[in-house]
Amino acid sequence: KGDVIDTNPQNASVEQGYQFLNRLIPLMVKDALRDGTSVHNKVVEFKHPEDLMKTLDIQLRDEPADNDQLIQACRQIITYSVKTGHPHFFNQLYGGMDLYGVAGSWLTEALNTSTYTFEVAPVFTLMEKVVLGEMLNLVEFPDGDAIFCPGGSMSNMYALNLARFRCFPDIKRTGTAGLPVMCVFTSDKAHYSISKGAALLGIGVDNVIKVKTDPMGRMIPAALDQAISAAKAEGRVPIMTNATAGTTVLGSYDPLDEIADVCTKHSLWLHVDGAWGGAVLLSDKLKGKMKGIERCDSLTWNPHKMMGAPLQSSAFFTKHKTLLSECHSAKAKYLFQQDKFYDVSYDTGDKSVQCGRKVDVLKLWVMWKAKGSKQFALEIENIFHCAQYLTRKLKSTEGYRLVLEEPECTNVCFWYIPPSLRGKTETTEWWNAVSKVAPEIKKRMVEQGTMLVGYQPDGDRVNFFRMVVANTAATLADMDFVASEIQRLGKDL
Amino acid sequence: KGDVIDTNPQNASVEQGYQFLNRLIPLMVKDALRDGTSVHNKVVEFKHPEDLMKTLDIQLRDEPADNDQLIQACRQIITYSVKTGHPHFFNQLYGGMDLYGVAGSWLTEALNTSTYTFEVAPVFTLMEKVVLGEMLNLVEFPDGDAIFCPGGSMSNMYALNLARFRCFPDIKRTGTAGLPVMCVFTSDKAHYSISKGAALLGIGVDNVIKVKTDPMGRMIPAALDQAISAAKAEGRVPIMTNATAGTTVLGSYDPLDEIADVCTKHSLWLHVDGAWGGAVLLSDKLKGKMKGIERCDSLTWNPHKMMGAPLQSSAFFTKHKTLLSECHSAKAKYLFQQDKFYDVSYDTGDKSVQCGRKVDVLKLWVMWKAKGSKQFALEIENIFHCAQYLTRKLKSTEGYRLVLEEPECTNVCFWYIPPSLRGKTETTEWWNAVSKVAPEIKKRMVEQGTMLVGYQPDGDRVNFFRMVVANTAATLADMDFVASEIQRLGKDL
Ligand SMILES: Cc1ncc(COP(=O)(O)O)c(C=O)c1O
Ligand SMILES: Cc1ncc(COP(=O)(O)O)c(C=O)c1O
Repeated sequence: KGDVIDTNPQNASVEQGYQFLNRLIPLMVKDALRDGTSVHNKVVEFKHPEDLMKTLDIQLRDEPADNDQLIQACRQIITYSVKTGHPHFFNQLYGGMDLYGVAGSWLTEALNTSTYTFEVAPVFTLMEKVVLGEMLNLVEFPDGDAIFCPGGSMSNMYALNLARFRCFPDIKRTGTAGLPVMCVFTSDKAHYSISKGAALLGIGVDNVIKVKTDPMGRMIPAALDQAISAAKAEGRVPIMTNATAGTTVLGSYDPLDEIADVCTKHSLWLHVDGAWGGAVLLSDKLKGKMKGIERCDSLTWNPHKMMGAPLQSSAFFTKHKTLLSECHSAKAKYLFQQDKFYDVSYDTGDKSVQCGRKVDVLKLWVMWKAKGSKQFALEIENIFHCAQYLTRKLKSTEGYRLVLEEPECTNVCFWYIPPSLRGKTETTEWWNAVSKVAPEIKKRMVEQGTMLVGYQPDGDRVNFFRMVVANTAATLADMDFVASEIQRLGKDL
Repeated sequence: KGDVIDTNPQNASVEQGYQFLNRLIPLMVKDALRDGTSVHNKVVEFKHPEDLMKTLDIQLRDEPADNDQLIQACRQIITYSVKTGHPHFFNQLYGGMDLYGVAGSWLTEALNTSTYTFEVAPVFTLMEKVVLGEMLNLVEFPDGDAIFCPGGSMSNMYALNLARFRCFPDIKRTGTAGLPVMCVFTSDKAHYSISKGAALLGIGVDNVIKVKTDPMGRMIPAALDQAISAAKAEGRVPIMTNATAGTTVLGSYDPLDEIADVCTKHSLWLHVDGAWGGAVLLSDKLKGKMKGIERCDSLTWNPHKMMGAPLQSSAFFTKHKTLLSECHSAKAKYLFQQDKFYDVSYDTGDKSVQCGRKVDVLKLWVMWKAKGSKQFALEIENIFHCAQYLTRKLKSTEGYRLVLEEPECTNVCFWYIPPSLRGKTETTEWWNAVSKVAPEIKKRMVEQGTMLVGYQPDGDRVNFFRMVVANTAATLADMDFVASEIQRLGKDL
């Protein structure tokens, strides 16, 4: 063994690594977890990209950085990262900081593996069975199948692929050449991942037919029926309808039962994009919003959104037991050997379009185990309650105008009409002026770091705020803060 | 505020959460990190699926579990999880435990966000620029573009989608209907993700044309040339060649320069799947294996494999600056508002087919910063050195027969011929008997938990071991162990 080379830093520096971890842990717990979720601190310490680049020590070098330098760098990383667990972070469809979720995600990383086979992920394979089984019961797909995907967009693409495969099972082998133009139906308020998926799968975004919605942002079943007939008349072959359970901006729930009637009539796959709003299935009080879900063919449901699991956590469900496997499997011999000595039906990875698949289940499992199903339901009910409270509050506060009088989900969308624009005739110029309000207030809130709320235009509606209650720890006091803070930021506009 | 409801467990139990984390951290550090990487402990404590299900307390319930129960459950989870950081884990194309990587992944989770916009991921957006920029330099795509994907399979699918888009830019809008049959070339030793991608994109697995390899497992450029001409003659439209830099089983490097000549001749996109072997680009000594890479159009490179970053970490690179964005963007108004007050060119998420995108960069960045580029190169050189040492050792040890005399990567593939089969005529029955050796030895090693090494058949070759040196902390002593342990496990066969 004279030629042992000692190039190996880990041998020499394992203890240095533990020292680093031992210094980083209290820093993370204090600066990122405790201070990052404290209402007394800023949500964001904003710098423009080029300034931030100059401030941070993030360049890579030939030579190593020592633990002091790294700790200093990590401190900066925390300082300048957005505190998504902060009580006043309402910017995205995720937020909050569940410490059991964090714990589960840390354990996931400590056990770094891939969920393709029982061989290398024995515990997590079984845990997926348990957690997805529990969710399948809530979805009422008792004989269904499910898998975790790296995000809701991917889950929606699974739906597209399965739906297409069911219409044209040869497609897996022979591809789409020679097949007719296919099309997909989704509402004009649906998430853009349906279009991204259609582009990736070769369906084409022009073949994503946008069905009209009612003023509440819900797909109109009769319009769907007409759109399907029209597409057929044009020679396009419908393969799927995507209904949304909780749209991205307005939080609308498409009427599943009536849409299922239309899809049944046309023998069409009905997928439900519940990436955002699917979590109502946890609550007996709220699950009526998804009445008819048991009649659908598949569902996307992201625990990293409304259930507060750390990113990434998205699950895809289908009623059709064998389809994920039939549509996706490649039976690679180096991974899914059939002559293993244990029951290889537990090697579930071939149902995925991925190979390595991150363990996304453990963090959700720890949260669920720690709360219990009842408490989980109460938390979801809590954020709906907060959103209703905020809605009422804004209705009765000067300067606010709601986009929807009665939001169905926890998205509360509104315009803020600053003092100078109040009581004026609502001309095109006036709306044009209103459209500039949200970006300006947003700029101020980011610069001051007091809160984060998103805004966007939507169809004919000019820029409005989309306030999302995604943090299951939200309180009514947080809602009061939103109402008063936007007034404060915009009072001179 | 009389109607504040107190359903919120986080309010009541935040301190309970910190208590849990404070108990879990030392448990993880001791049981998962320290003990999990100790050569004196088992790599796996195996139980069959049904037994394991009975042993673990993983069922979800209506009522909460308390911290004691959760800690006990986590202890079990660690016990029964495979220790992928163990020095004798050689089962997959990942392994090892870099504490700086673990630290970076924990910090990622503590700052839970999504890399779609600078707005919610200011630091990580810049960090992606830095890390991917550094890698783009190594790839020699100075004006290229890059993005992290949830795994190498997805990265390979990006290549397929971009290559197809370059041939048929209208496809994004109009889909594939009416277009000719397309086809893709890859070697018969390439990873199955090319086929899974072809199925998902609607190209069809029958249109993945498997090009012959030489006895070393490398694509034969002349065979590629012929296959392209033959496919064209049949009326199929070639859209891409996939060359592999480090095949999954044998670790072969396809000759990029000669393949690039063929692709240039046919004006064909050349993608390189370096998911496994791409890390040689870090080393001046080893990068010659990928000579010609600068002539290729795109590359997949997984830091979670040979660079030892925790899962998931895969990057996709392309020479064509604007193509990722042109091919994938959907310009969603609620996320990628153009009237933001900062430079929106830093909002890079629309280049992805995903929406939410996990922060995969930080763990790699922490590792890279801690090591420096020079040390990173030495670590890659170390595992090549270990693999060469093992190869020589097995050549001179009774009972071993190598699949390749001179492996190009750190995969060392070999048969173990047990005493009872030595010196016999090598008939079909004899090979049939040899094919049963690896599964039996594998069973024993799993049950005893001393080591994990994979096996598989490959083409005409019956089951052989594929020993992978992926752990950058590997030592020559670990290699000696492999040689003696398989002998020990198989001596009575
Ligand atoms: C050569 C090659 N390419 C691609 C992949 C897929 O990478 P991932 O598992 O990250 O999807 C693998 C996985 O082993 C591989 O060996
Ligand atoms: C309704 C809906 N579906 C799907 C998605 C995509 O989910 P992901 O970001 O996990 O890809 C989103 C994201 O916001 C969404 O709002």
